[in-house]
Amino acid sequence: MTDDSLPALVGPVEVVGAGLIGTSVALVCSRLGLEVVLRDTSEENLRTAHGLGAGRAVTSSDRPQLVVVAVPPARIADAIVGALTRSGAVVTDVGSVKAAPLEAVAARVGAADLARYVGSHPMAGSERSGPLAASAALFDGRPWAVTPHAGADPRAVGLVEALVLECGAAPVRMAPDEHDRAVARISHLPHLAAVLVAGRLASAPAEHLALSGQGVRDVTRVAASDPALWHQILEANSEAVLDLLAEVRADLDALMRAVAADSAPDLVEILARGNAGTAAIPGKHGGPARPTRSVFVSVPDHPGELARLFGDAGEIGVNIEDVHIDHDPGRPVGLTELVVERGSADRLLAALESRGWTTHR
Amino acid sequence: MTDDSLPALVGPVEVVGAGLIGTSVALVCSRLGLEVVLRDTSEENLRTAHGLGAGRAVTSSDRPQLVVVAVPPARIADAIVGALTRSGAVVTDVGSVKAAPLEAVAARVGAADLARYVGSHPMAGSERSGPLAASAALFDGRPWAVTPHAGADPRAVGLVEALVLECGAAPVRMAPDEHDRAVARISHLPHLAAVLVAGRLASAPAEHLALSGQGVRDVTRVAASDPALWHQILEANSEAVLDLLAEVRADLDALMRAVAADSAPDLVEILARGNAGTAAIPGKHGGPARPTRSVFVSVPDHPGELARLFGDAGEIGVNIEDVHIDHDPGRPVGLTELVVERGSADRLLAALESRGWTTHR
Repeated sequence: MTDDSLPALVGPVEVVGAGLIGTSVALVCSRLGLEVVLRDTSEENLRTAHGLGAGRAVTSSDRPQLVVVAVPPARIADAIVGALTRSGAVVTDVGSVKAAPLEAVAARVGAADLARYVGSHPMAGSERSGPLAASAALFDGRPWAVTPHAGADPRAVGLVEALVLECGAAPVRMAPDEHDRAVARISHLPHLAAVLVAGRLASAPAEHLALSGQGVRDVTRVAASDPALWHQILEANSEAVLDLLAEVRADLDALMRAVAADSAPDLVEILARGNAGTAAIPGKHGGPARPTRSVFVSVPDHPGELARLFGDAGEIGVNIEDVHIDHDPGRPVGLTELVVERGSADRLLAALESRGWTTHR
Repeated sequence: MTDDSLPALVGPVEVVGAGLIGTSVALVCSRLGLEVVLRDTSEENLRTAHGLGAGRAVTSSDRPQLVVVAVPPARIADAIVGALTRSGAVVTDVGSVKAAPLEAVAARVGAADLARYVGSHPMAGSERSGPLAASAALFDGRPWAVTPHAGADPRAVGLVEALVLECGAAPVRMAPDEHDRAVARISHLPHLAAVLVAGRLASAPAEHLALSGQGVRDVTRVAASDPALWHQILEANSEAVLDLLAEVRADLDALMRAVAADSAPDLVEILARGNAGTAAIPGKHGGPARPTRSVFVSVPDHPGELARLFGDAGEIGVNIEDVHIDHDPGRPVGLTELVVERGSADRLLAALESRGWTTHR
């Protein structure tokens, strides 16, 4: 092996915290044939993860090559320091925030030990939690930030990126504070906006909510997540989150002034900036967003009908980029939106209509 | 016909404004065999709608039973007054806001004419516009608010509700100002929150956006809509929108204080209120939300694979309540989320795995 090549991930791998993310990493490593040892304060989590084939409980004689810390944000720094102190292994963590834990760890270990620590953050998760929700496929195709500090050993960085690739994810390398500013904007702010909108629904009259369409459902979906986890994430990234909330507060004030003054140019400018923002999100496979068109089809709401629709779409040979099923109060017919490449839409419409589907654009 | 029965919709129906909504209503009525006449300042829209089979251009000798006004918000009041003045027909409109147009109309026509006007609002639409986007299926299973004023003729209300039912929608009767407060909360506020979040993405570095997951895509999707239409909607409902924005601004201030003070109890309370709000949105078919569970499946990103998945799900006999396809930067495998009734999830998982699918919960 030359210095340039990626270090091989040979194990053993120690996973600290057998929850959703930790057990999923352990499942990937076990399926690769690596020895995986698990550490968790919950005997039940250990038993469950072991039963899923994720690995066995750690013993004092284990000498891991790599330790993956996957505990809640409030306990991450302690767990990283513990792992660096008790072993000579490379240590990573999968926490949602990177700068604050690094600072806490750096204050408690020497530079030589700190060189073995490289933070990371898979952009994967679920509204569910715990080892029973785990899966070796959780990271398939997801971005996974790798956030080395200035003093990190390049071989340690390479080993963490090797883990990311084995998990089927795409490594995205960035500095810890850069990462935190990024997730504040593309994860924490959207989350909080969803929470504020959903919070205004909690006490709304039922007849108001009866008018709910797909828009409010999409905007608020992530607000269903676990408050106990999210308050830790927000506290750990409070500086970047507060900076962004202050920007949004200024935008909100400008919006309220524009609405109050009936100022069409100001309102249109604010709305157009929203258009630009949605266009800035990268498309599938990391490329620029491909132009798409939506094809709408009425589908009876019982088993087999969606299968028939997708069977027909498959035979027509058009690739479905995305699907939305509208929740339809009032009758047992769902409106299904098929998002396809713009050039394929007319062909799909004509072919579906010829097979008896009720479509509209 | 007794006074209690619904008046029959026999036509002719005049549609004013041959855009997305107007042409869709015209298509429904034409397919019912009713005579449909179209009025639009755009010759091109008229030609297109006529070509789609939506009806013919209006003449001065036409005597409609029902006029449906489907013009942009800024022109609605004029169009309603015009329709009431030139004919003895029942008049409805399909605008997104109800109180302000009613007030403008009431100031310009007598009580006898006003009695023939009953506002309405189908909760249907698209990020696309114009007659080419129209479809007779656009209203299938959607809520459609019907908003009679105190002086409305009950037979006029009945005729508008007959139209709503013929369109396949579910009529939801409420007072105009009640409607406007409802849509401010379940449509206009979510829209503006999406715009503010998307606005913060517009100038973000590309490497920050590379970490985007499904959450930010869902929260911001509606912000891609037409600014010219939305500024009219917001101006027409500015009072209710401003009231809600002021509430959200107070919530945002409380959130910023909680983050700045690292106050776990306050943050958890705010996040839990978001949980409650998502749970308050009614489920499919207007009933309470049924408990669901998500089943995740890895699906290769080429034609036919989704068909195979839905074919298998159909044979297994499980009804899919909702579908999300994750946009996955990095590799050509999509993560597909199938939302099913909680009691069916384990059966679906086992059966999909036995057919060779890579699943996780």
